[in-house]
Amino acid sequence: MKKVEIAIIGLGTIGAGLYRLIMKNGELIRNKSGINIVIKKAVDVNMDKKNELGIPDSVFSTSADEALDDKNIDIIVELIGGTTVARELILSGIERGKHIVTANKALLAQYKSEIISILVSKGLELGCEASVGGGIPIIKTLKEALVGNEIYKIVGILNGTSNFILTKMIKEGVSFPEALKTAQTLGFAEADPTLDVSGGDAKHKITILSSLAFNTEVDINKVYVEGIEEIESMDVGYAIELGFVLKLIAVAERVDDGIIVGVHPALVSEKNPLAAVNWEDNAIMVYSDFLGKSMYYGKGAGANPTSSAVVADIVDIALKIKSNYEYNPKVYSFFNNLKQLNFEKSEYRYYFRFNVFDRLGILSKISGILGNHNISIASVIQKEVEEKNEYVPLIMLTHRALEKNVRKAFREIVNLKEVKGKNTILRVIDD
Amino acid sequence: MKKVEIAIIGLGTIGAGLYRLIMKNGELIRNKSGINIVIKKAVDVNMDKKNELGIPDSVFSTSADEALDDKNIDIIVELIGGTTVARELILSGIERGKHIVTANKALLAQYKSEIISILVSKGLELGCEASVGGGIPIIKTLKEALVGNEIYKIVGILNGTSNFILTKMIKEGVSFPEALKTAQTLGFAEADPTLDVSGGDAKHKITILSSLAFNTEVDINKVYVEGIEEIESMDVGYAIELGFVLKLIAVAERVDDGIIVGVHPALVSEKNPLAAVNWEDNAIMVYSDFLGKSMYYGKGAGANPTSSAVVADIVDIALKIKSNYEYNPKVYSFFNNLKQLNFEKSEYRYYFRFNVFDRLGILSKISGILGNHNISIASVIQKEVEEKNEYVPLIMLTHRALEKNVRKAFREIVNLKEVKGKNTILRVIDD
Repeated sequence: MKKVEIAIIGLGTIGAGLYRLIMKNGELIRNKSGINIVIKKAVDVNMDKKNELGIPDSVFSTSADEALDDKNIDIIVELIGGTTVARELILSGIERGKHIVTANKALLAQYKSEIISILVSKGLELGCEASVGGGIPIIKTLKEALVGNEIYKIVGILNGTSNFILTKMIKEGVSFPEALKTAQTLGFAEADPTLDVSGGDAKHKITILSSLAFNTEVDINKVYVEGIEEIESMDVGYAIELGFVLKLIAVAERVDDGIIVGVHPALVSEKNPLAAVNWEDNAIMVYSDFLGKSMYYGKGAGANPTSSAVVADIVDIALKIKSNYEYNPKVYSFFNNLKQLNFEKSEYRYYFRFNVFDRLGILSKISGILGNHNISIASVIQKEVEEKNEYVPLIMLTHRALEKNVRKAFREIVNLKEVKGKNTILRVIDD
Repeated sequence: MKKVEIAIIGLGTIGAGLYRLIMKNGELIRNKSGINIVIKKAVDVNMDKKNELGIPDSVFSTSADEALDDKNIDIIVELIGGTTVARELILSGIERGKHIVTANKALLAQYKSEIISILVSKGLELGCEASVGGGIPIIKTLKEALVGNEIYKIVGILNGTSNFILTKMIKEGVSFPEALKTAQTLGFAEADPTLDVSGGDAKHKITILSSLAFNTEVDINKVYVEGIEEIESMDVGYAIELGFVLKLIAVAERVDDGIIVGVHPALVSEKNPLAAVNWEDNAIMVYSDFLGKSMYYGKGAGANPTSSAVVADIVDIALKIKSNYEYNPKVYSFFNNLKQLNFEKSEYRYYFRFNVFDRLGILSKISGILGNHNISIASVIQKEVEEKNEYVPLIMLTHRALEKNVRKAFREIVNLKEVKGKNTILRVIDD
């Protein structure tokens, strides 16, 4: 039996969950892996956590320094969140020769390269499975299971809050504000839901995933982001009629001369297994040259699933460092120096809803503009409207087209005098 | 860069795929992992394989002994299949200190404990990711990603042929023989499809998976098996009406005093992500105490996906053996000595279709029998039949009940004079 000594820094939702997991399943972990996880220090500024979790006096501390200074501690588990104190803590840990496990997606999305370069120079390990997709083992899968594959695309449902809201809109036909209110009541959305519904959280996650999948540095500031705040029930309904469901997706794709990374709502074909990923669940579809399409589904957040991922990281690192292993920096290398292209260079099929004056000729006018921009139409639905309303919704699905051209065409079309009010443009994910 | 020398024994579909993968992505693998996979020997009795794959003279051989006797070879990759020659090969390899990678599900389902006990006594590694779910990293997930979890249930769609046939029946309303014929024409079913459609192949796979998930020995001879040969279009249709799709599933479950393992067709709720797993695809849903429900989806067969899994095993083993690691037998231990219970002790919801004489009183008679066996009815559909037919289908969904009781009740009901012809009993998987 090998003993690994860890410090849990931060006893919030995940930290407390991790403490409980190790208390409950410690023996099981020893039996499965031969690794005895010893929590040497559990640190939080809130003294109440000690009694809440029943942490012994000798283990609980309000000072992270006590953990950092403990020479016997092998791994620092950073679960305080944020990008300032957490970053300092991790860097101090590395400085003192500690291996790092973290669930901090915001930090990694921004500082992953910096942290990894220092870490590797010291011959230390980093576990970050919990930073994306909660307990779904997507990082292990990308790094290990797909080691023989060239990965060319990732499409993920990475934000549980947005997926809950969209599922509510799809299943019950309610509006975005109503669905958001329910999500907040049930605890699936925060009082300020901006980071989730505006795509920021998914942006952090796809930045981390794409960097691992393509073995390249990815600049979070170049990731395209569009949230779900503007999604209207009407489009949710038309999508269903056309055989699609609306999802907030994160996409990272290799193209000829680089990669394109973005987050946006999309119509996902009901034939795509991602369409069956509902409510607060997450899933990641990975496209690679030998394995082909594979998908990983589960709980993307919450104390228990996230703790499951943190423990897997701890055991993986312990198995290495407690077995006289020779350090292998290759698994952390960004050996591809891929150019991160502007999102305008991406190609999709598109869904348009134009609010048009119901008059002969408008369809040919719109088709003409689309044609001028090399966009060809796959199907059209013109909706009869019951009330005496001169403006009717015109829905179109296009064939594959270049984002840049589509944006130009869209701007031209909405400026036509026969088109008014709110018009919609959404991307389509087939399979 | 670490060099690992391997011998590929068997250059059939998977062996040839593996050779091609390493030729194409060898450099990528070196960049990702620091492991240089060198194919020292590629062995097949068929000389044509040499030219087909462009294997150098010094590498190709028709004799496995040449590979076994080569002291520099670290890993024997057994891809010949079957349970006789393959078993001898693996045992000889172990005898000579070779680590083993295999995709051989039939062999592992039957001889896993024997092979592992000899292997562990010699301090050697076994990779068998490719034996279940093709390239889906389910074995790595069970062993590593879920190391902190107590796993209590696995439900898998593990046979691509059966899933293709059932999907065809569901989407196009065709009969089993018709769907089978299409599957054979398209290469998704063999000329003799017995092993696939009768559940034998899925039995091999669930035996391996349940043994790993529950860390216990599982006796393949005690695994319950029911195939899909008897499935009728009528039941496929009623299932859809009720919100279910028919799938051949493999289930392994921990119960109070042991485990129950079986393979059978089932009505899977459309709300369950497994319901969206169509055609030849596979998926495995894992239920565990911390991660909760998680699912792993992809191609369950084929040269490329399977080769992807074999390569992941090779790299994992190489990373260990080329890094001065200390051998860890724990990861192979069957530390739980769980009793494998008779399938009659399992509990499900059930779907019945009885062919009943359409007369007042029969429903109460049937309900009475079910009640006597502690089976309560959740819903009933009595079908009007257009033709003048005195016998009509009576469809019932039950609440959760004990298999043993259900079998007894079913026998009693089909013996009623008002019930005749073919009657159906199927299990239900909700979520």
